[in-house]
Amino acid sequence: MPMTGVLRPGHAVLRVLDLDESVDFYSRVMGMKETGRDKSGRVYFKCWDERDHNSFVIRKADTAGMDAFGFKVLNQATLYRLESDLKAYGVNTERIPAGEMLETGERVRFQLPTKHTIELYAEKTDVGNGMPYINPEAWHADAEKGIAPIRMDHCLIYGGDIDGNKKLFEDVFGFNLVERVLLEDGETALAYFMTCSTKAHDIAMVRHGEDNKLHHISFLVDSWEKVLRAADLMSMNRVSIDIGPTRHGITRGATIYFFDPSGNRLETFCGGYQTYPDCHPITWTWEDVGRSIFYHDRKLNPAFLSVVT
Amino acid sequence: MPMTGVLRPGHAVLRVLDLDESVDFYSRVMGMKETGRDKSGRVYFKCWDERDHNSFVIRKADTAGMDAFGFKVLNQATLYRLESDLKAYGVNTERIPAGEMLETGERVRFQLPTKHTIELYAEKTDVGNGMPYINPEAWHADAEKGIAPIRMDHCLIYGGDIDGNKKLFEDVFGFNLVERVLLEDGETALAYFMTCSTKAHDIAMVRHGEDNKLHHISFLVDSWEKVLRAADLMSMNRVSIDIGPTRHGITRGATIYFFDPSGNRLETFCGGYQTYPDCHPITWTWEDVGRSIFYHDRKLNPAFLSVVT
Amino acid sequence: MPMTGVLRPGHAVLRVLDLDESVDFYSRVMGMKETGRDKSGRVYFKCWDERDHNSFVIRKADTAGMDAFGFKVLNQATLYRLESDLKAYGVNTERIPAGEMLETGERVRFQLPTKHTIELYAEKTDVGNGMPYINPEAWHADAEKGIAPIRMDHCLIYGGDIDGNKKLFEDVFGFNLVERVLLEDGETALAYFMTCSTKAHDIAMVRHGEDNKLHHISFLVDSWEKVLRAADLMSMNRVSIDIGPTRHGITRGATIYFFDPSGNRLETFCGGYQTYPDCHPITWTWEDVGRSIFYHDRKLNPAFLSVVT
Amino acid sequence: MPMTGVLRPGHAVLRVLDLDESVDFYSRVMGMKETGRDKSGRVYFKCWDERDHNSFVIRKADTAGMDAFGFKVLNQATLYRLESDLKAYGVNTERIPAGEMLETGERVRFQLPTKHTIELYAEKTDVGNGMPYINPEAWHADAEKGIAPIRMDHCLIYGGDIDGNKKLFEDVFGFNLVERVLLEDGETALAYFMTCSTKAHDIAMVRHGEDNKLHHISFLVDSWEKVLRAADLMSMNRVSIDIGPTRHGITRGATIYFFDPSGNRLETFCGGYQTYPDCHPITWTWEDVGRSIFYHDRKLNPAFLSVVT
Repeated sequence: MPMTGVLRPGHAVLRVLDLDESVDFYSRVMGMKETGRDKSGRVYFKCWDERDHNSFVIRKADTAGMDAFGFKVLNQATLYRLESDLKAYGVNTERIPAGEMLETGERVRFQLPTKHTIELYAEKTDVGNGMPYINPEAWHADAEKGIAPIRMDHCLIYGGDIDGNKKLFEDVFGFNLVERVLLEDGETALAYFMTCSTKAHDIAMVRHGEDNKLHHISFLVDSWEKVLRAADLMSMNRVSIDIGPTRHGITRGATIYFFDPSGNRLETFCGGYQTYPDCHPITWTWEDVGRSIFYHDRKLNPAFLSVVT
Repeated sequence: MPMTGVLRPGHAVLRVLDLDESVDFYSRVMGMKETGRDKSGRVYFKCWDERDHNSFVIRKADTAGMDAFGFKVLNQATLYRLESDLKAYGVNTERIPAGEMLETGERVRFQLPTKHTIELYAEKTDVGNGMPYINPEAWHADAEKGIAPIRMDHCLIYGGDIDGNKKLFEDVFGFNLVERVLLEDGETALAYFMTCSTKAHDIAMVRHGEDNKLHHISFLVDSWEKVLRAADLMSMNRVSIDIGPTRHGITRGATIYFFDPSGNRLETFCGGYQTYPDCHPITWTWEDVGRSIFYHDRKLNPAFLSVVT
Repeated sequence: MPMTGVLRPGHAVLRVLDLDESVDFYSRVMGMKETGRDKSGRVYFKCWDERDHNSFVIRKADTAGMDAFGFKVLNQATLYRLESDLKAYGVNTERIPAGEMLETGERVRFQLPTKHTIELYAEKTDVGNGMPYINPEAWHADAEKGIAPIRMDHCLIYGGDIDGNKKLFEDVFGFNLVERVLLEDGETALAYFMTCSTKAHDIAMVRHGEDNKLHHISFLVDSWEKVLRAADLMSMNRVSIDIGPTRHGITRGATIYFFDPSGNRLETFCGGYQTYPDCHPITWTWEDVGRSIFYHDRKLNPAFLSVVT
Repeated sequence: MPMTGVLRPGHAVLRVLDLDESVDFYSRVMGMKETGRDKSGRVYFKCWDERDHNSFVIRKADTAGMDAFGFKVLNQATLYRLESDLKAYGVNTERIPAGEMLETGERVRFQLPTKHTIELYAEKTDVGNGMPYINPEAWHADAEKGIAPIRMDHCLIYGGDIDGNKKLFEDVFGFNLVERVLLEDGETALAYFMTCSTKAHDIAMVRHGEDNKLHHISFLVDSWEKVLRAADLMSMNRVSIDIGPTRHGITRGATIYFFDPSGNRLETFCGGYQTYPDCHPITWTWEDVGRSIFYHDRKLNPAFLSVVT
């Protein structure tokens, strides 16, 4: 089969400081659909054009940040094979029983070298995108409720041993390196952008002094005009914008970085190129690092390297 | 590895009636880059953002139409495995030696049940997209030469046994069915849209009285505004437009159908959703067939079902 | 003062066959705001970004078509001056008292040589666009309710003596000719596109065997992406589309023609150039008439010249 | 006539430090067409879709800045009438003979209360936009050479007595106030945005300690996608970007501020609403001044109030 193994980013679980405020933000401003709440207090959301029950989960905590990032794999056999491959690679894994997350099958959980928690799962209930599988329309009203991203797309994580991360994603899961940024020495990587599909990134990682940090969770919108619409809605709702609208040099995507009420950074973006396993990776050297991140400003804003949750 | 086997449509080989006129059309109007000519008279083109040496090849002939449609596979071992799988499936295969097409490795050729010639190959020289692999720009001048599609994207073929085609693509290559259109009886398929990736279609097929016919070769552009730009350039160059700009119900892509000087139908399109192997296929029934093809007009134009090369 | 006299198209009054169905269409599908109903049964609408109380009025009748097209003039003194100028030009005028239309001042009504009823008025209550005049936002939710045009923009009328119309608009009101289409003889005009501002047309007229006919009322949307959105919403609501999305050669605007439930043709469009009184008019000759109207199809569809209300 | 008096901004004359570098910048990067050079060393440019011979003129000098900003008036009689009106208003005027600027008629020059030099003229040779006045196309290749704005659109000037400026533009020329920004006292204006047409601004002015300063000359592009394209081209050419892409609260336009090689600030923008003489002006109070200028960042960048030439 052409696409096997890990299919795509499936869910992000984030910590928020005030649950009601956050539910209002993610449902009304972001325009995601709340699909459920569980006994432990987690609130589940999906983007309008996603079909699985949830892709974004929040829980109340004393500090913001990310609990876990999940990838959907092809099927249950793949899940067990990858669990076995992880163990053979020397990684401890843990099974979380089906149903511990709403409408989600058994999960295999492990830690990256950067101490981020990753989860694999094969099953999440298809609740549809609000349109029938027979004779659908092109889109429906939910596509214009709030910012209304199409899908939760990827995450950018910060931590120490990103080389260990990269090796694990390559060796165990077969991810491909799409782009990388080098530090002043011309050898050490500042950042890796990796994919399990044709997306320019399914996960990205930046070298950082502290492990298990989140830089941002990213959401896809349809077009540059929708990026502007997102920025407008952020201003109308007095959402804190970090930077944008602008373009990344890396992946060429057009973007806005902004913050949820707890200070977790989010991204809405569109565009960027598509990649394949036979594509030569792109390298950015230190003298062009500004342009690699923010193609128009051509310099890093201080927040990019320092503000994480 | 997440993406294995067949990676993507790699090249289309078309017959044209007048080579000079066609070279002018594909280079100046379509804005593809001519990358070479071979001893047998074939002229090779690539789209600006493609990295492989060629994706579109024309040769002079007495009738228009498609000689072959090629898919790139992951590597040489995959090529031989798929050759073996084809044979095991009962399909005759033929090896074409490396170099028979410019900058292209060994090909494995076979016929679909609809008599279309399909080629698999693993190697095509990476000539780049005109930008370096170190510190590139977001795009360059070639992105605005003529219609300037990003890539050759997919084909739609016409023939009799599309059920046989579908079974072969599923069973041997692991393609997924993304959408299908049913005839009046509610059972027989008029059309299948299949993918080996997350694209809504890498190949599509429509049931037709005559085998080995081409409906169109499709090229991707960046945005709906680029679709308008393409339509403008077609008018400025008095290119024959079949229909559009408009939207498809199937895949949701926004599109123009038009003809090359020999009468081969081409498409420029943007957008459409992305799919994964776990996505439930979409079905269109006969009463909505018009809307499935042309979402705005909601009726087929007579040419759609009859004009093929 | 730079802008004096006639300011802009201010209201169109149309006849519809079924009032409830039409109110639903204009409010829910078109996304106009109903601003009132009067004792005579007329229903008043405005576009979201218009500030005056109404720009589009419908009444129930046995036949579709246009009762009157109104232009707003600078002030009451201008109204009386233009009334006097019309009389001096030999045109009969009629005063309609303030309040006969809701929130609308005194009107001066007269007939064009093509028998269309034109109304001038200076006063219509400013009800705002839903945003304050102090510290407003960039737009608000009404901008995404239905097709949500920005404004009623212009009309295209059909009738016999369009030369008489043109002369009147030029000599009495100082309109400028922006574009014209010539018939086969190279002399007789098929169509005139005229402006009282920098819009490429505030009113247009086509030569036709029958007087007092309406070709379409046109509504402005923000962008080509909003034109696509409009076409999508038309299909979702099974609105009858005449043609489009496409581009006009004349004015360069990008457009859709479609029909209200009574058969009145409407247009949503974006773009087109801006003109000034010192701009040389553009002429289209008969051999390019197709391209002048539908820039991509480069031929008239039969409906363009025949279907009017 | 509906449009009389002052028609539009017609030309800006700027000082640059290095002529060759500036010619390269304005022709290759900005994509304006050089239309001539005169004996005094001035170089003349026009935007692709402008029809008059020039709209932007540069000359070499030791300091950057603006020599003069010109408005085209309806005709020669209007020119002399406005000259007479200026004198009656107490303003000294100077006649510059026809031909002193290439292909430009007699000019009437005067100083604003803020000491900026304004010129009125009625004649500038129509050299066309590269397309015929008979059966033109929708656009041509020059529309994609460099940033390729459609037209020089307006200027923003800095100086002391902006109230005097406003009164002069209103009383002598009949300009309308479209938007204004108030200082902390809620009475004093920080800025006025004024129009002689339906554009949201033909000239704008900000209160500043030093007279005769230029904040920026603004150029119109077609769409938000063209704004992105402009920002991309700036980065490709290492042009210094001040801010953007972003949106203004005032006028709602979407924009980039950037600098020419001499440090003169330029703007490319799209969109914004259209206004009429009967439209109530919009007021921004001090607490929302950030949002009024930069709608997304909601704060002024320090350069906005301090960097002028």
